[in-house]
Amino acid sequence: MAGYSELLSFMDIPVFRLYATYAAAVTLKMMFLSAWTARFRLSRKVFMNLEDAEGKKERVREDEDIERIRRCHRNDLENIVPFLVLGLLYVLTGPSVYAAAWHFRAFVASRFAHTVVYLMHVPQPTRFLACLVGYGVNVSFAVQVIMNGQL
Amino acid sequence: MAGYSELLSFMDIPVFRLYATYAAAVTLKMMFLSAWTARFRLSRKVFMNLEDAEGKKERVREDEDIERIRRCHRNDLENIVPFLVLGLLYVLTGPSVYAAAWHFRAFVASRFAHTVVYLMHVPQPTRFLACLVGYGVNVSFAVQVIMNGQL
Amino acid sequence: MAGYSELLSFMDIPVFRLYATYAAAVTLKMMFLSAWTARFRLSRKVFMNLEDAEGKKERVREDEDIERIRRCHRNDLENIVPFLVLGLLYVLTGPSVYAAAWHFRAFVASRFAHTVVYLMHVPQPTRFLACLVGYGVNVSFAVQVIMNGQL
Repeated sequence: MAGYSELLSFMDIPVFRLYATYAAAVTLKMMFLSAWTARFRLSRKVFMNLEDAEGKKERVREDEDIERIRRCHRNDLENIVPFLVLGLLYVLTGPSVYAAAWHFRAFVASRFAHTVVYLMHVPQPTRFLACLVGYGVNVSFAVQVIMNGQL
Repeated sequence: MAGYSELLSFMDIPVFRLYATYAAAVTLKMMFLSAWTARFRLSRKVFMNLEDAEGKKERVREDEDIERIRRCHRNDLENIVPFLVLGLLYVLTGPSVYAAAWHFRAFVASRFAHTVVYLMHVPQPTRFLACLVGYGVNVSFAVQVIMNGQL
Repeated sequence: MAGYSELLSFMDIPVFRLYATYAAAVTLKMMFLSAWTARFRLSRKVFMNLEDAEGKKERVREDEDIERIRRCHRNDLENIVPFLVLGLLYVLTGPSVYAAAWHFRAFVASRFAHTVVYLMHVPQPTRFLACLVGYGVNVSFAVQVIMNGQL
């Protein structure tokens, strides 16, 4: 029977430890966008609900910069959620530490780049390429899990 | 080699068992918002697709109460998804049952409160504070995972 | 202490292996919608950001077919994310391979059907029923996890 000490020792397995750290870092980056949205809503007084706007209807409107942050956040959800799940399953297919580390680094770097590029209005195709790298990592994970799997 | 009995015994580890139960409860709460949206769409006959509206174009429109449920649902996705992943990784850093239980309870209570407050139009800063508690729990998880990790 | 070989042997446990394969397949299906959106944005020249549209303001607009794909994608996020987490926790409650396989197959089939039906404008209640099957599987997972759990 597995005890708690055994569960905890997963963190001593290098590939798993890398996964846990990169997953936490990229999730924290995604969460930053919630705070960033809130900051702009409060400073610009632009809200989505009447009770947030002290009852002032003219403050319930859309702001293009805030919508941009929300689009970036949604793109994060669409890409980081697959990474979190596929990355964990990929670890269980037994990749080398080297291969796993570079998959994780490429993904996390691509998502940090995507956010910076999106929020700073950097001309395309920069954002497209940043997104593509992360997408490619996720596809690589999925293929390796499915090749090791059974339907 | 780990067998199935070993995998199953994770549920006997108190911290893991708490995680699994709270994670399932808060995910079920998030799923409730799908059903709640569907209920209002059907009773108010407000849809997003022409084929849902029996081909009646005037039924394809936005309803502020339904949009409110959808905003609540999106906020859940943005906050509960990080909880589900970071909470699991946090369990693997070896917290005490006491610390883990209160992290989980604070998060789940904050999200139930957030939903009630959002859907009942309770004046601010109630919803902001409810959201903040859950956000703080997630940040606490992420910091503890990263402190135990390696990049 | 658990070693890497033990972690890897999870993939040899039939119920876990089924989970991993179906989870990867349905996540890949969800990711397909990102590519599908991008394909239509590029061919129809309809964008959400000015820098994507080569600075041409008239290209920053909404297209009903693209919004349809995005609604389908959001519905996936709202339903597949719960599956990925609840499905994993359900595996740890010790279901039979038979019960687990049919839960996974019903869910994944319902989500593939949902996407095809949504994107092809199939009349209701087809999409509603496809969504309902997946929703029911998730509720079944959550109930079984909570019944095995502790608050």
